[in-house]
This record gives sequence, structure tokens and C-alpha cells, in this order.
Amino acid sequence: MRPVVVTGPPRAPLETVDALAHYGAATVHEAMGRAGYLGTDIRPVQTGAKTGGTAVTALCRPGDNLMIHAAVEQCAPGDMLVVATTSPCSDGLFGELLATSLMARGVRGLVTATGVRDVADLRELGFPVWSAAVSAQGTVKATAGAVNVPIVVGGQVIRPGDAIVADDDGVVRVPRADVASVCEGARVRAGKEEAARAAFRGGELGLDRYGLRATLERLGVEYVPYEDHAEEAR
Amino acid sequence: MRPVVVTGPPRAPLETVDALAHYGAATVHEAMGRAGYLGTDIRPVQTGAKTGGTAVTALCRPGDNLMIHAAVEQCAPGDMLVVATTSPCSDGLFGELLATSLMARGVRGLVTATGVRDVADLRELGFPVWSAAVSAQGTVKATAGAVNVPIVVGGQVIRPGDAIVADDDGVVRVPRADVASVCEGARVRAGKEEAARAAFRGGELGLDRYGLRATLERLGVEYVPYEDHAEEAR
Amino acid sequence: MRPVVVTGPPRAPLETVDALAHYGAATVHEAMGRAGYLGTDIRPVQTGAKTGGTAVTALCRPGDNLMIHAAVEQCAPGDMLVVATTSPCSDGLFGELLATSLMARGVRGLVTATGVRDVADLRELGFPVWSAAVSAQGTVKATAGAVNVPIVVGGQVIRPGDAIVADDDGVVRVPRADVASVCEGARVRAGKEEAARAAFRGGELGLDRYGLRATLERLGVEYVPYEDHAEEAR
Amino acid sequence: MRPVVVTGPPRAPLETVDALAHYGAATVHEAMGRAGYLGTDIRPVQTGAKTGGTAVTALCRPGDNLMIHAAVEQCAPGDMLVVATTSPCSDGLFGELLATSLMARGVRGLVTATGVRDVADLRELGFPVWSAAVSAQGTVKATAGAVNVPIVVGGQVIRPGDAIVADDDGVVRVPRADVASVCEGARVRAGKEEAARAAFRGGELGLDRYGLRATLERLGVEYVPYEDHAEEAR
Amino acid sequence: MRPVVVTGPPRAPLETVDALAHYGAATVHEAMGRAGYLGTDIRPVQTGAKTGGTAVTALCRPGDNLMIHAAVEQCAPGDMLVVATTSPCSDGLFGELLATSLMARGVRGLVTATGVRDVADLRELGFPVWSAAVSAQGTVKATAGAVNVPIVVGGQVIRPGDAIVADDDGVVRVPRADVASVCEGARVRAGKEEAARAAFRGGELGLDRYGLRATLERLGVEYVPYEDHAEEAR
Amino acid sequence: MRPVVVTGPPRAPLETVDALAHYGAATVHEAMGRAGYLGTDIRPVQTGAKTGGTAVTALCRPGDNLMIHAAVEQCAPGDMLVVATTSPCSDGLFGELLATSLMARGVRGLVTATGVRDVADLRELGFPVWSAAVSAQGTVKATAGAVNVPIVVGGQVIRPGDAIVADDDGVVRVPRADVASVCEGARVRAGKEEAARAAFRGGELGLDRYGLRATLERLGVEYVPYEDHAEEAR
Repeated sequence: MRPVVVTGPPRAPLETVDALAHYGAATVHEAMGRAGYLGTDIRPVQTGAKTGGTAVTALCRPGDNLMIHAAVEQCAPGDMLVVATTSPCSDGLFGELLATSLMARGVRGLVTATGVRDVADLRELGFPVWSAAVSAQGTVKATAGAVNVPIVVGGQVIRPGDAIVADDDGVVRVPRADVASVCEGARVRAGKEEAARAAFRGGELGLDRYGLRATLERLGVEYVPYEDHAEEAR
Repeated sequence: MRPVVVTGPPRAPLETVDALAHYGAATVHEAMGRAGYLGTDIRPVQTGAKTGGTAVTALCRPGDNLMIHAAVEQCAPGDMLVVATTSPCSDGLFGELLATSLMARGVRGLVTATGVRDVADLRELGFPVWSAAVSAQGTVKATAGAVNVPIVVGGQVIRPGDAIVADDDGVVRVPRADVASVCEGARVRAGKEEAARAAFRGGELGLDRYGLRATLERLGVEYVPYEDHAEEAR
Repeated sequence: MRPVVVTGPPRAPLETVDALAHYGAATVHEAMGRAGYLGTDIRPVQTGAKTGGTAVTALCRPGDNLMIHAAVEQCAPGDMLVVATTSPCSDGLFGELLATSLMARGVRGLVTATGVRDVADLRELGFPVWSAAVSAQGTVKATAGAVNVPIVVGGQVIRPGDAIVADDDGVVRVPRADVASVCEGARVRAGKEEAARAAFRGGELGLDRYGLRATLERLGVEYVPYEDHAEEAR
Repeated sequence: MRPVVVTGPPRAPLETVDALAHYGAATVHEAMGRAGYLGTDIRPVQTGAKTGGTAVTALCRPGDNLMIHAAVEQCAPGDMLVVATTSPCSDGLFGELLATSLMARGVRGLVTATGVRDVADLRELGFPVWSAAVSAQGTVKATAGAVNVPIVVGGQVIRPGDAIVADDDGVVRVPRADVASVCEGARVRAGKEEAARAAFRGGELGLDRYGLRATLERLGVEYVPYEDHAEEAR
Repeated sequence: MRPVVVTGPPRAPLETVDALAHYGAATVHEAMGRAGYLGTDIRPVQTGAKTGGTAVTALCRPGDNLMIHAAVEQCAPGDMLVVATTSPCSDGLFGELLATSLMARGVRGLVTATGVRDVADLRELGFPVWSAAVSAQGTVKATAGAVNVPIVVGGQVIRPGDAIVADDDGVVRVPRADVASVCEGARVRAGKEEAARAAFRGGELGLDRYGLRATLERLGVEYVPYEDHAEEAR
Repeated sequence: MRPVVVTGPPRAPLETVDALAHYGAATVHEAMGRAGYLGTDIRPVQTGAKTGGTAVTALCRPGDNLMIHAAVEQCAPGDMLVVATTSPCSDGLFGELLATSLMARGVRGLVTATGVRDVADLRELGFPVWSAAVSAQGTVKATAGAVNVPIVVGGQVIRPGDAIVADDDGVVRVPRADVASVCEGARVRAGKEEAARAAFRGGELGLDRYGLRATLERLGVEYVPYEDHAEEAR
């Protein structure tokens, strides 16, 4: 890893990112063809937050948050800070003071493959965080890393300027070049879901709405009364 | 696995299941002789929900929720839907649209060995869910499974019609044939606990109330002042 | 393990422990030179609790909470009960009845390497708990252990009378002999943090406040415009 | 759980079980329609063992192997002992002395959801073991459990008399009533595999042998030269 | 994910890859500045294998190995097949028949984020495999994925044509463009290690050879006789 | 943590430690009253090694092995080096060069809560290692820690001079002051086991040898023929 702070990366257009955030992580994930999800281990430390922004990335050494400080300066309004370490690390690399600093710069939230701390303060500040752990264990500021290089969080490559969408379901990353098409896909999908929601409230079944009875038949799924099945079963 | 939808399974009587749910998972678990618990990995996605119902089971392929749609049609008021997959799968097989459909049928909640998504919406709807994960990752509807066959969730066999009791402590399953006796056992136990609660509030000790001083003595547990113990210790 | 209940251990002075608790787990952890943290697996079962106390320790056998009952009697106002088992055990060794008993004695909370149950009741009672799991699975009261001997929770040795500080970030242990010096260290640190907080709110950067630009330079971290970096990168 | 030792369960015919064991866990798993596998956490403690037998089951309390001793007496030549605990337990519930006793009775091996110990001795004795852990930690013989009741290991229900097939790939359970049909299915499958093996050695591709080119086409998979793809990719 | 088979990717030069493989995973990882390691969860299923090759990548759906079959055709002598799934999956996506097919094409080994099966046969064939699990559970060949697109295994991005180095320490990936420089770095490092090895055999200490006494002094590490330290310690 | 190298700790007498090692980890663990085991996560990287020695301890920062180099100098013939980090760390802090250096000093082996690398070389050298992970990921030599202070590995406190016993079952620690009494206990136990082994080979049952039939009866365990039990069961 070359120790470098990359400056001025192009960013996905913020109005489109905001529209993506409105649809939420699950819908955006669908609109991308079920891709881009950072997995079940990156969890919100608060309840009910739903946001999005453009990624600024920081790659730290385990137990060291020096490069987060370097990354703060590269952040602009509308950004989300995304952090990874070169080795797994659950220490609390981020807390309330860094959140205060990021809020002063208009940053929307944090996504990190590490732990965070001061979570009661973070909730009170209203600065949303998605992390792999909560840990009171602090860090040093002593070893070099990188800012705004591609990093991997939850098996997904995140590049500076990519769109990040995060809510209670977790975090999804949309490549910068795809935000417009994914946004349109999410809009179409949300419309369909709205119609399905009304139908389901009225008692229609997914089996009928999605034509799944034919699928079941094609796959050879039989309907058997309980008594008959119990008899056959061992 | 035979691809089958079993229809019309007998169900535990709902009024007894409701009484069980009132006692909660921990008391019911005790009343069964410390059995039937689905383990610490099946967690509520909300806080404060406490419910119960009769099991309708769905066995899906990983990454595929076709059989949940088939199971919805088999659900009646008072049921709980219980889902497992043939291989471990943390994907979000269930979300707000399916919850809407289940609520229209009077279903009480969901227990699943997989992930779920749309959890903010699920909380708002008031549809309680216990799952092994939260995941934005969606699924297809393409491969066959089974409905209302015995499945294993958290090491427990769950049969259609069994009683399911779920709260913040997790999920307990009561075999259909046992709901009456377990309910009576829970009633007796809850009565004893109410008396113990009052005694403990008044300062009585469990050592005295449960006769444990004799147990300690029989087991050879000695009382040693700190200074004497410190001296002996290395 | 010798089966013993050690009585009358000296305790850290409560007013100093209270002052430590005020600073919270992360600050206390820093004031100890980044030590004493019980790790990311010991988690609060409630949100927003922040407390501290002097440790009474119980060492149980897995699936058996007899020694917790013995420990209750050794508890005094201002104590925190800390529990470990001789083998890993996620069962619910502790619930609402024991909490009621401890509250009657003025105990501040529980820290346990095991599971707990009745968590909805615990939240309603306002008795804070930090545990490795939530489990409806109950226990017997049948095998010998020890009270007020040194135990290990989360890789930290906890001795009776040590100070325990716990909040949403987790649990930190301060050796009894160190509470005064750690408290002074926490006071100094909290003062510095207050000043940093104000500065960060005003837009100052950590890079400048902590003199980190020099560190980055010494470590050979270069600043490179995005276009130049993209060209070099493969 | 009722404390009971069930005697004289019917067993799957041993010659068919032996034939199943010859095909190995993966082939038998296929022949059952991809079912019956105890999962990736039940691992051999030795390399190269391949065996099978009829299940005798023991359900123990965590940290207690009393019921294994009771189970030994129920074992006959050709049996496999299968052990679970009522709560998760990684202690070494089984070691070289119990293996010696089982070998004297003609037992084929052990499958356990717990830990085992004396593994160097077990390897030297040639008594094969599949377990969830290796642990030097021993146990007591003090609490009641059950023998020859259905137990769950690795998410699979195992009944006394079921066939167990185990090798380096793990453990598969075949219900007693199915051993003949599964054995025939395994025979057919093994024949097909033998033919495929020869073809693959000769350079034929699975794409052609299994007709998968048509599948790829139907699914819309395109073949794109690297240069064209690199250009399109971001 | 676009369903695509990318053909004809450029590959790192095989003679350099062979030289890298000779140095082994740990030395190559050092020569890259401690980068490129696929982590501790990707483990060899055999003992003593040490190899390297150029990556052909397959991205599968969980529980489906169709794209491995498509990937086999894209493999050439000197390649290593590297497999990931779109969701976590521990099933045995790969076994002895596929290994036979790959060996017929001169492929060096397999690295997979999934499970594998037939491991006894794989060891006998001498086809080395590094995987996240061993599992008897088989798969279907039914859903689309991709071949020779960038995939993520163990948090590392692997592109077709990259060099893969694997031994008992795990797996390291070297970007195609860097193989020459990394190989030179490994050569230099191996030379230094050879000299250090001889010195250490002769009794020289790392403290002296690497000048670490000065580091200890600068960091304020004191040497204290045991008796003095024991007195100060609590 | 005070940065210190403690010199000249008293050590358990080596001839007694050798005798302990002869009995192995499981027997020594029993002789201590089932205590001192480092748990199932500290595993041998080789097969068949069985050794023991007196502990020299090193406490490192994660990702930094400076203090291992400092510890080497404190090692004498008959020692075992035991390593922990202040935060969890799976990196390969130890490899073949350090093993070479330790062998030159007569050290018996390594026990570490971290990862190790060069495991093929370690096996060839015959230097036995017990670790929590294998990892190709290397470390720096840059931050201060401590040597010969008490550390925690696998939940056990290990002090310099304690006896360490390690084999395929894992690692057990015996406090320095207890080696003589534990050794005598192990001798007695091994004698009893030898007698039991002969009896079991001859077909005697543990039920009879240990008087467990009475225990079963006292606990209310009933013997029920399979047919009767099947009828009662649901």
C-alpha cells in the first residue's frame, strides 16, 4: 500500500445520491440486480437513521486512526466517510470528537469495518454510524495509511466518489458511474412495490400477483392434505 | 426433501397458546423442563414485542423465498410463520411486503433462521420478527422447497401446529400435544415467581428462600475472610 | 478451583468510583493507558445506561447459578456483580428475580460472561446489565463455584473490590489500587476533550490540533491529485 | 426432557449401512436429494477415516458425560455413538477410556456436537471421531439426560437406529427407513461419476457432458473478449 | 452483476509467478509491503502444498456451481481457479470430478471462499485446495454468474490474470502489473532472511541484529529484576 | 500497561514440569480440579507434539512483535514462550526465524493468542506451536509492550515461571507453586486410568466401574423398551 492522500476525487451527483437514499438500502440493492451490499456484519449503532452520501475513503493500520484525521480534511458537505483497516481490527477508531469535526464539515455519516466508541454521544449528536463493532478501546495516531484509494468493506470495493446508501437494513454501495441508472431502477421498483403493498393489504396473495402458482407446478411441488402426508412420513 | 405443500395441519388450541405467550419465553422454557429454546442466535429485530401463535413452517432454498409465498396462503389468524433454509443463508428472505400480506391474514409474527430486511418498516407496522440476521440482500423466487413439513431452527424441531412463544428473550417452541400441560406448569411457576419477587423486594435472600445454604455446605463451599484467603492465595 | 466464598474484601472508595463512572468507559480506558477493556463481546442489554461500582465476583459452573445466589449476600450498596463460568456458557444465568434481589441491596448492575434473560423486565426495572448473550435458557442450582475470587471476563482479570465502569461502549475494569490515579488522568483527559470539542465545532482540524501534519510527512504520506493517482494506478 | 434410557431400538440393516459408508458422505448426501448433512462444524479429528454405522444417541447436560456411560451399554457391534448436549458445550465429554470401552463392544466411531479429548490417543487407537471441538476440559458424571431419544446435531434430527455415514467431508445421516433406497441411489450416482471421471481425465468438459452450454445461453450469459469487457467496465 | 464469461484475459508471466510461489505466501506478503493476504479463514485442506499460478475467476450464486463449469473451459496450464459467491455459502461447490477436469487442463489448484468436498480424494489426487470450509453438501447448476470478472475473496480484489501464491500459511494475491517488482522484493528479502537464519542458529539475537535495543530504549521500556517488579505490582 | 522487561523470574522446577508434560494436557487439567485450560481456540499447528516448559511471557501490541524479540533474550533452556496482545490480533507475529532463534536457546515451544506463519517450516524444524490462527500477515517492530508480566491467554492468567503443558488436546497452565501437588495428582490419576483402561478393554462398563447405576437411579432415569417409548412419544 502506497502511503498517499488522494485529493479532489470526482463525486457522484449529490441530488441523485439523495434520491437513492430516499429509496433505502434494500430497494437500491434490488435496483442494482442484487449487488453492492456490505453484508450483515456492518450494523447501525442507532435505530431509525436513513441517509446517503458520496464516499471519502480511509485505509488505516489496525489500532491506529491517523488516516481518519487526514481524511476529515478531504471531506465536503454531502460526503460519507468510509473506513477500513489493513488487518481486521475491532478497536474504537472513531468517536464523538471526530463526529463533531465531521459534522462541522457537513458530512452525513460514517461506515467502518472497525469498531466505534462514544456511541451514546453519537446517538445524541444525531451523527449516524454503521460499524462492525462497538468498542471502548482507543487507538494511536502513529502509522501511515491512505485516503481516497479503493478499499474493501464487507466484501465490496468502495472507491472515492461512489454513492453510499445506509439505513437500518445496512449499507449499499453504488458505483459512481451507475447512480443515475440505479436511481431510475429504484424509482420503477418502488412504484411496483407501492402497488403490491395496496394489493397485499387487500388480501391478494404473492402466489397470484407474481404468477408463482405456475412456478410451483413447474417445479413439481405437490399439495398434500396433512393426514395423507403424516401417513407417508416416517 | 420432497417438494410439497402440506395443507390443513391440526393446530394447538389458540386460547392455550395465548396463555403461554402471556407467560413469556423464559417461563415457558422452565415449564417444559428447560427445553424447546431456539438459542441465542435467533434475536428480535424490535424491542418489547411479546407474542405467540401456532406454527406454519416453510423450508426454502438459500437465497430463494418462493416457499414463503406458498406458505402465506396456508396461514390463518393466530399463526406464526417459521422459516428455515436447506443450507445456512443470511439473506433478507422476508420484508415489509410479505409482512403486509401476513398481517392481512391475521398472522402474529415471523421466526426465521435467515435474515430479514425492511426492519424499519417492520417496526413501524408493528409486525414482530425474530431472525438470525438483518440483511438488505434480496432473493429470487425460483426453486422448490416445502411448506408445513417439520423443520429445524436453532437446533429445535418445529412441526406445523406447534405453539411458538417469542419475546425479548428469544423464541421457545412447545409441541402441540404439550401446550395444556406446559401452560399449567407455567401458571404454577409464575405464581411461585410472584411470591419470590415480593420476598426479594423485601430483602429475603435466594440462599434462604430456596434452601441453598444446605446445598453450599453439602458441596463443601467454605466461607473465608478476605485476609485469610489472600494469604493462602499465590 | 477451591469452592469458597470470600467475605469482606476491601473495596475501591465509592466516591472515586462514581467519579470514574461519570467519565465513561472510553475515557477511563484511555486514562489507564488503553487497558482494562472487557472487549466487544460484552454488550449492554439496554440503551443509555452509564454506571459504575465495586466488583463482587462470582465464578459459576456452566448452566448453574448457585454461586450467584451466594454472591448476592456478599453484595453491598455501590457494588456491581461480575460473573464468569468455568467453561463458556451462553445460558440465561441471571434474570429479573435476581435483579430484584440485588436492587434491594443497592447493587448498581451486572456484568456477565454468560447470557441473561427476562431482559424486557430488566429494562423496565432499570437494572442495567452487560452480558455476552441473551438467552431464555435457565439453569440449575447444583454445583459448587466461588465468590470473590479473581475471575476473567473478556480477557481481563477482575478482583473483588476493583472498580467497574460500564456504559453503551462496554465495560472497563480499574484495579482497586489505581482508581485515584486513573480518576485524575480521566479528569485531565476530559478537560482536553472539552477544549478539542469546541475547536472541532468551530472547524479546526485534528491534523492541526494534534500536530499530525508533521507525522504524515515523517511517515512519507504524499498528497496526490485524483487524476495523477488514477493514471498511475492499475 | 424425560430422563430415560430407551432400550432395544430397531436398527437399519448393517450390510446396507456398510454399503452406504463405502460411497462416502458426499455421494450419500446427493443420493438423498441433498439432505441429511450435519454441517461444516462437525469435523473429523483424524485424517482419512471413512466409516458408517447405526446410531445410538446420547443427550447429555453441558459439562456432564454421565449419559455417555449409560449409552455405552446400549451399544452393539456396528453402532456409531452420536452425542448432543441440551445447551452448547465445547468441553471434552469423550476421550480415550470411553473409546476403549466402545471398541470392546464393536462400535465404529463417535459423532458429537461437543468437544473431545485425548485426540492423539484416539488417532493411535484407530477409533474415528467427528466433533465440534477438541478440548482438554473434562466433565462430571452428575446430571440426568437421555439415551436413544431423537437428538439434533448440526441441525439434523438423529434417531436411534438411523444410518450414519462419516468421512473427511463430514457426517451424513440417513433415516432408518430410507437406507435401501438411498443406497440404490448412491450406487447409480457412483456409476455415473465413474464414467464422468474417465471422461474428464480425457479432457471432456462438464459444459458438454452435462449440457450446460444450453443452460448458460438460456440464462443470458454472454461470452465477451477481455478487451471489450475492460472497455465497458468502470 | 452482468452474466458474462470474459475470455482471453492477459496473464502475469508464468515464470515470474513460479518464482513468487517458490518464496511462499509470507515472504511475498512482506515483499508487497504487507498487503494482498486473503486472511486466516481461507485454509488449505491438505498439509505441505506450496504452489502458485495465474487467476481465472468464477463468481457463483450460493449453492450453485454452474459458473465453475464455465470457468474450467477458460483455464490454461499454469492457472489457479479462484471462486467466490454473491452471498456467503459454505456448501461444497467443488469436488474430485472438477479437480480431475482441471488437472487435465494443467491447472495448479483452487482457492475458494466457499466449501469443498471429496477432500480425501483431492489429497490423493494431489490437487491442492484452499477453502473457507469443508462440506459434503452439494449444489445445483442452475443460475447465472460470471467468469473472469474481478471478485473479492478474503477482503482482497482478485482480477483474472493476477498471480496467486498459496501454501500452508494461506493465500496471497499479487496484481498482474506488480509481479516483477514483488518478485525482486521477495528475492532480496529471502536473501536477508537466509543470513538472519544462519545468525540466529549461531545464537545472535534479533534485538542486536535488527537494532531493536535502541527502539526499546526510545520507547521507554525498562528492564526491572523480578523481585523489584513483584514488590511494585499489586 | 507499564513498558517493562522483567528479568530473572523464578521458574517451576524443570524436572517436575517434564513429569507433568509426560501426563499430557487432559490429565493435568483433571489433576488441577478441571482448571487451567486455555480453551478450544488455542490449537496446535502440528500433529502429535507433546511438550511442557516454564513460561516466559510477552505482551505485544496488535500487529507488532517487538516484544517477542525482547522476550527471546529472557528465555532459557526448558522455557516455553507465551504471547498475548493488548487487543485481539490474528496476524502472524511469529515465524520460522524466531523459532530458529528460540531453538538455539533451548526453548521448547510457543503458545500464542495471535496468529503464526511459516507453519510448514515450523513443522520441519520440529518446533511445536499452539496458536489461535495461522496467518501469512506480518508485523512491525515499533511499539512498546512488556516481557514477563502476567498475561491472559484463553481466559487463563499466565505468570512467568508457571508450568505450561501442551499436546494435541491444547494447552494447560499450572501455577508455579502448584506443580508438585498437581504432578502427584496426575500420577495418581494416571494410575487409576491405566487400571480402568485394562478393565474397559476386557469389557467392563463405566456404569459398573464408577458406580453410576446408583447415580442414574437417584436421578430418576428410567429404562424403557423402544416400543413402549415410541408409543408414548409424539
